[in-house]
Amino acid sequence: MKRTIYFKNHPKIIATSTVAGPKESNGSINKYFEVKLNDDMFGEDTFEKAETKMLYTVIKNSIKNAKYDEDNIDCIIAGDLLNQIISSTFSARKFKCGYLGVYNACATFSESLIVGASMVDGGYMNNVICCSSSHFSSAERQYRYPLELGNTRPPQSQWTITGAGASLISSNGVGPMITAGTIGRVVDYGITDANNMGAAMAPAACDTLFAHFKETGLTPDYYDLIITGDLGTLGSRILKDLIWEKGYDIEKQHVDCGELVYNICEQEYQGGSGAGCSALVFNSYVYNKLNKGLYKKVLLVATGALLSTVSTQQGESIPAIAHAVVVEGNI
Amino acid sequence: MKRTIYFKNHPKIIATSTVAGPKESNGSINKYFEVKLNDDMFGEDTFEKAETKMLYTVIKNSIKNAKYDEDNIDCIIAGDLLNQIISSTFSARKFKCGYLGVYNACATFSESLIVGASMVDGGYMNNVICCSSSHFSSAERQYRYPLELGNTRPPQSQWTITGAGASLISSNGVGPMITAGTIGRVVDYGITDANNMGAAMAPAACDTLFAHFKETGLTPDYYDLIITGDLGTLGSRILKDLIWEKGYDIEKQHVDCGELVYNICEQEYQGGSGAGCSALVFNSYVYNKLNKGLYKKVLLVATGALLSTVSTQQGESIPAIAHAVVVEGNI
Repeated sequence: MKRTIYFKNHPKIIATSTVAGPKESNGSINKYFEVKLNDDMFGEDTFEKAETKMLYTVIKNSIKNAKYDEDNIDCIIAGDLLNQIISSTFSARKFKCGYLGVYNACATFSESLIVGASMVDGGYMNNVICCSSSHFSSAERQYRYPLELGNTRPPQSQWTITGAGASLISSNGVGPMITAGTIGRVVDYGITDANNMGAAMAPAACDTLFAHFKETGLTPDYYDLIITGDLGTLGSRILKDLIWEKGYDIEKQHVDCGELVYNICEQEYQGGSGAGCSALVFNSYVYNKLNKGLYKKVLLVATGALLSTVSTQQGESIPAIAHAVVVEGNI
Repeated sequence: MKRTIYFKNHPKIIATSTVAGPKESNGSINKYFEVKLNDDMFGEDTFEKAETKMLYTVIKNSIKNAKYDEDNIDCIIAGDLLNQIISSTFSARKFKCGYLGVYNACATFSESLIVGASMVDGGYMNNVICCSSSHFSSAERQYRYPLELGNTRPPQSQWTITGAGASLISSNGVGPMITAGTIGRVVDYGITDANNMGAAMAPAACDTLFAHFKETGLTPDYYDLIITGDLGTLGSRILKDLIWEKGYDIEKQHVDCGELVYNICEQEYQGGSGAGCSALVFNSYVYNKLNKGLYKKVLLVATGALLSTVSTQQGESIPAIAHAVVVEGNI
């Protein structure tokens, strides 16, 4: 059994694109976002259609940003939090290329990067778009309660990001390179509180990080940045404790996308979450700094809580997963 | 843009495994099934847990049938019809290897084969299990109506299969080889009747078959068998008409898994469907005949209807997709 795979031909992320919701567009890294929405309906009549339009927009813009046209794209690899990943499907419907739907909850974006990098590195495809999205209002009403109820949120909760991000991975061109990935396994520590995703996901992040360090022989200081997807403040603290107990101190390198995206005030509690969280932050803030040479080696570890409303109602605990992707700058 | 990819190192399906529900176990190809259930609850207390146990069973048995143990497996690539693909996640939770969740509705099994074959062929992994499942009762109550309502079924409807199937793809060993795949794109002909999946999916099957023939230069007579996933009787007729109009006659080679699985009587109308349909039929009947040399070249074209209850309620039509996989016998 091996979980770390290496991309020897160094597939490159030649372009990215992001769309951020209104709250995110007022957050701490807003200047890096490409499209900032004033209206979380994005001119549509349902939240689900708005999310679909966000994902469609980042796919379209990533092609434009690469100065490519649609005919250059072999495949869209996408996933999202909605039942039957409809945001992904209905976005892909507008393009002529192939489509592979993927789902690992909020780890979907890094899963899509691993599958996409394998396809390009292995010579099966030349240009692949990897993307994911989430929308606070479509997720909240699907996973928790109708928004109209105005439920009080517990202090350990996170705020599902309204956002989408896409990476165009190519066998040619210039951009940060995907050099390796460590595939997550399903980890379940028995957490049953669907409002405490950070605690459910931190053990999965620890498991994948530990496998990554062990299999590659690397230590945290190899990286300029170890960025988790959406553990939030509490989950990040748990991760740093867990991985420290395994002999690795990631305090200096670690940042969490969910912590980074908001000027955390009372409403978001532990920070952002959602399949759009790592996609939004990676494809804006992180990509920008990789391109400028400010980061040279980044480990993206997006984490996902693999529950559904039915699994929760049937008394199941919350399994989680984390996929790690190594992205190295060209400068 | 290219949609057909070739696996030059010929990853092999060294073992398979299937579990069939009670109705399927009384169908026309029942002698090929490995585990036949008398009870569609499989000893569990919910349909969803029964489906999870079915998928867990085929994963476990495919490892056993290959005379491997769990440590030999690098990754499980799985998907199913339940929201957030919980059957796949909760099955994978019981194994130590990596997990990639995939979703393209009833085309999920062929999607998993394409991703798995790429991983093995590209040298990233040695042994991968590709699998999917469906369960009549868990699907019916999620997608349509509570079973207790006893709704009348319209004549164009299909019957979601209770079944699961797994293929163990390996870089070593002996077995039928996966030599190519054609990745589907999202096709939408504007069908809005969620009880008429065959009509929604047939254009997607036609699109992928046409791309496959065009890109490979092959004609239908290259294959002993062109087997679609779950078009059913009506959908199969539509497909044969559509692809005939494009200049290819598949009448002689074509069989549909959904038509094959039942002794079609009144209740199933157009035949079987579901993500388990192609997984069950391919990993039993088709695999057996490939291994015996009765089929030498098989094109599996699983088709998926990419709707959700929310997309239907919001007035969307039903997009569909089909992924084609070429499997060639070793004998």
